[in-house]
Amino acid sequence: MVLRVSVGIIGAYSLKYESRSQLEAWDMIRESIKGVLNSVDKGIDPRDIELVIVSNFSDGYGNLLHSGPLAVDYLGNPSAKAFRVENACVSGSTALYIAYNFLKAGLARNALIVGFEKMSTQPSGSAANEILAKAAHPLEIVAGASFAGLYALIAKAYMDKYGLKEEDMALVAVKNHENAVRNPLAQFRRKITIEEVLSSQYVAWPLKLMDSSPLTDGAAALIVSAEPKMYTDTPAYIKGISMAHDKPGVFQREDMAMLRAIKEAADNAYRQAGVTARNINVFEVHDAFTIAEIVIYEMLGLAERGKGASLLKERTVWFDGSHPVNVSGGLKAKGHPIGATGVGMLAEVFWQVRGEAGERQVKDAEIGLVENHGGTGATVVVTILSR
Amino acid sequence: MVLRVSVGIIGAYSLKYESRSQLEAWDMIRESIKGVLNSVDKGIDPRDIELVIVSNFSDGYGNLLHSGPLAVDYLGNPSAKAFRVENACVSGSTALYIAYNFLKAGLARNALIVGFEKMSTQPSGSAANEILAKAAHPLEIVAGASFAGLYALIAKAYMDKYGLKEEDMALVAVKNHENAVRNPLAQFRRKITIEEVLSSQYVAWPLKLMDSSPLTDGAAALIVSAEPKMYTDTPAYIKGISMAHDKPGVFQREDMAMLRAIKEAADNAYRQAGVTARNINVFEVHDAFTIAEIVIYEMLGLAERGKGASLLKERTVWFDGSHPVNVSGGLKAKGHPIGATGVGMLAEVFWQVRGEAGERQVKDAEIGLVENHGGTGATVVVTILSR
Repeated sequence: MVLRVSVGIIGAYSLKYESRSQLEAWDMIRESIKGVLNSVDKGIDPRDIELVIVSNFSDGYGNLLHSGPLAVDYLGNPSAKAFRVENACVSGSTALYIAYNFLKAGLARNALIVGFEKMSTQPSGSAANEILAKAAHPLEIVAGASFAGLYALIAKAYMDKYGLKEEDMALVAVKNHENAVRNPLAQFRRKITIEEVLSSQYVAWPLKLMDSSPLTDGAAALIVSAEPKMYTDTPAYIKGISMAHDKPGVFQREDMAMLRAIKEAADNAYRQAGVTARNINVFEVHDAFTIAEIVIYEMLGLAERGKGASLLKERTVWFDGSHPVNVSGGLKAKGHPIGATGVGMLAEVFWQVRGEAGERQVKDAEIGLVENHGGTGATVVVTILSR
Repeated sequence: MVLRVSVGIIGAYSLKYESRSQLEAWDMIRESIKGVLNSVDKGIDPRDIELVIVSNFSDGYGNLLHSGPLAVDYLGNPSAKAFRVENACVSGSTALYIAYNFLKAGLARNALIVGFEKMSTQPSGSAANEILAKAAHPLEIVAGASFAGLYALIAKAYMDKYGLKEEDMALVAVKNHENAVRNPLAQFRRKITIEEVLSSQYVAWPLKLMDSSPLTDGAAALIVSAEPKMYTDTPAYIKGISMAHDKPGVFQREDMAMLRAIKEAADNAYRQAGVTARNINVFEVHDAFTIAEIVIYEMLGLAERGKGASLLKERTVWFDGSHPVNVSGGLKAKGHPIGATGVGMLAEVFWQVRGEAGERQVKDAEIGLVENHGGTGATVVVTILSR
């Protein structure tokens, strides 16, 4: 029953991810909206933007709720309809999922998506981790689990089953840090070595500090259109977008070394777009912890089960490989401001397929994929963008 | 471009609103889902519910985020798509607004909406009010404004302009408490007198404790269908639903004695439904403070500007009047568990137009209206339901 409308991203903007103690959450929203409006090639009248979706995780970080009407005020179109969505770390792609469906169904012509998270309001210890833990299953929350601990369960299960080594996981961090050097928007623009990763402190064995994505302030914005050619000659069309869920608790899953919903969402998105993993030129994926990126390779069909790490050793997923993954630096080195994360990943692939990614541009990138997930993969959205 | 689909509510459930320190937020969600599934006359297979929207305000109250996949797990349909929405006190009606549009466009056949707020985790003083204040404009937040203070500005402006007295506002509380006596789901089932209201302590002059809605734990759920007759012979059809925004800050508005977006949303909803205020048999409106209800009468077209209080004196809006308002007890006496509030208001009107409201049933109610707003009216959703 879906109409034949080509929905595309026509503008994108991102603040540099970093701890910016002097910048309030509302300023981040305002800056992002101003930036994304200015990014549209042929310009756009704010009055043509009828839907505004704000993506944000926790007011424990940002001290700001009911951000929808604030975004409407900053946008300058009092007739726009606005609300905030939250789906843990996949809030940003969820916002796109909703906007896409509204546009595809003819319920709006253009939509603004703004993602933000102001994490520097919390010290990076237990307070920050307690807020993040609220994205887990209730029984995990009351047991005092942290996300490092939950991904450690996944890593242990995977290591036992497939013989993965800590050195293999370290390669994800090394690769993504090397990529971040080329990205002026990234939080950590510094190369690291396998030895540095391996000698960093354990946060939850077998995961170390340098296997983990950092706390970051960040905001990013997109404008999505049902008439993209009106606003730019080079939109990034949404060729596929799919949401899937897994059981919220790691303990509820038959195979802890799997992130099942990623496969389900990816398979659906590939089907919608009429492509396979082979056809994708650039991938942004949810490397909240290094183990996640290895499992994601397999769920996306880039490697067989248990063989994910071989892509790192064979350099397939490095910047100069055939299927580069996280050329932005990924969550690990670009940063992971929860509510902004998915929006920023989509912005990166928008720039890549338009050939605007500067020093980190993947040559001849025509089609890109964003894999963004929440919790330990309880909610996944996979999006395929194409020139 | 919207298709000719009749969307209706086919099931509703609400926990009794009260402080339930032993009940966790996740248990409230689970109980509500179980209850609403059981409420559908002809039954419904969870696998037919393709969309799940959770409505919740702040994790500062509930200690729970990423509630979408949890609701999917409790529902028992792993293929459903889920996310949480937040739009301050109008989160519940925002969830219906999104679900309605998805269903109307053929993107899903049935949707589950679950609203919850677990407010008893905070003492009812500054900590709770600090969380609530995050729904205001940033400049109001940093100035330390409370919602009592912001509604006091509105009350003062209104009193100056139209000669309203504190006794007039007190009548709203007296009426709504009298109504709550008939509602087994209400938090305060106790009649009060004008003298009790007037002698209660000021929380922000001219508003007193008894002009204010309380902190409450609560959850409520709805099932909405694009094929309502498959599931019940007596759905409550959504005849009109409209969202509108005002400037987020009271200080930004030309007339502080107005809640402009309520008029905009109501006028649109009336137009969609082909009715006027006169045709509506039962109203549930957002009496977060007594002054709000009086302004709402006028915005909905029940009274001329400045004449709202006359409806209280002439008993038009009492249980036995021609246009009863808040027969449930309203936010004032039924309770105001933020994320659940709008869902519970919609449940009440669902029961009213189906003739299932027991002792508080409005005779021959065929058509009802829900006015639910967030902040000081920065976001409004008005919904019209009909047999």
